[in-house]
Amino acid sequence: MPHINLPDLPGIRGPMAFSPETAKPLNELAEILLRDDNSTLSRGERELIGTYVSSLNDCFFCQNVHGALAGHYLECDINAIDAVKKDYQSANISNKLKSLLSIAASVQKGGKNVTAYQIEKARSEGATDKEIHDTVLIAAAFCMYNRYVDGLATWAPQDRQFYVNRAPQRAEEGYIDFDLYK
Amino acid sequence: MPHINLPDLPGIRGPMAFSPETAKPLNELAEILLRDDNSTLSRGERELIGTYVSSLNDCFFCQNVHGALAGHYLECDINAIDAVKKDYQSANISNKLKSLLSIAASVQKGGKNVTAYQIEKARSEGATDKEIHDTVLIAAAFCMYNRYVDGLATWAPQDRQFYVNRAPQRAEEGYIDFDLYK
Repeated sequence: MPHINLPDLPGIRGPMAFSPETAKPLNELAEILLRDDNSTLSRGERELIGTYVSSLNDCFFCQNVHGALAGHYLECDINAIDAVKKDYQSANISNKLKSLLSIAASVQKGGKNVTAYQIEKARSEGATDKEIHDTVLIAAAFCMYNRYVDGLATWAPQDRQFYVNRAPQRAEEGYIDFDLYK
Repeated sequence: MPHINLPDLPGIRGPMAFSPETAKPLNELAEILLRDDNSTLSRGERELIGTYVSSLNDCFFCQNVHGALAGHYLECDINAIDAVKKDYQSANISNKLKSLLSIAASVQKGGKNVTAYQIEKARSEGATDKEIHDTVLIAAAFCMYNRYVDGLATWAPQDRQFYVNRAPQRAEEGYIDFDLYK
């Protein structure tokens, strides 16, 4: 049961419906970070970074919403996403993405954990300054979203297939225009 | 030296100038959370929650910017703010604010650390659902801002008086309208 009296919606949608004035910039940030077409990281790669950070933060709702979206964009099933969460170094993803996930993992622990070596490694794998910037901000933002979801003890559907089934519709709607009460 | 090539501005202002499209929702979120007039928490109380979380995250820039703002609004000097950071339970603040700082400290560790007992305690001190919600989101948001600032290894003026001197102007400008390049 949530810590406060929230609209009966799963995960972040409860507090977002409770506080639409803060939901607006929260959704705008997600829309730009995860979906903006100017990024040279694919939507799937960005969702995967958010998924990985959410798994490190042990946030069931976020890692399943965004894991299902990553699977949708990257055209792989949930087992492949789970493999990245479990051990991204041995997963079937690019070396550049591995180097960015390493940075994201350090950000999750705390910003000062990011090392010059990690940055150099990402650069040597072809990552640009904007890609490094976006990785740090995606990881930081999920440290916020995850805490918002779990800090209020929101509920979430436990059947992981629920999230997989919803992913195509979520991908089509984006983060800004979907109806919070749907 | 920052990890990536940023405009030469202190703290969060470097990455915000590097990425104005994400700066917009980040500033809008801060404006609503920390300054909106509909809140029953004062601006000083909200800045103090952000300051405390920033100190737990060891983010020099954020704890000084927001600590100076908290001091400005609460009409106390930096020593009183430092006393809250060091041991808020014995500081000269209300029991309600102490109970909210306790929740904020748990959110900083991770959302699941917030306990039903902490929520009950805050309620018994007069905290409303909205005040608890806002405390959780302020704490979560500073876990993002702090990681954004330190994850990119931004620089910050080391003279703490710099932040105190700037606080009245910052308080007047708010988070949305100030010129990032000033």
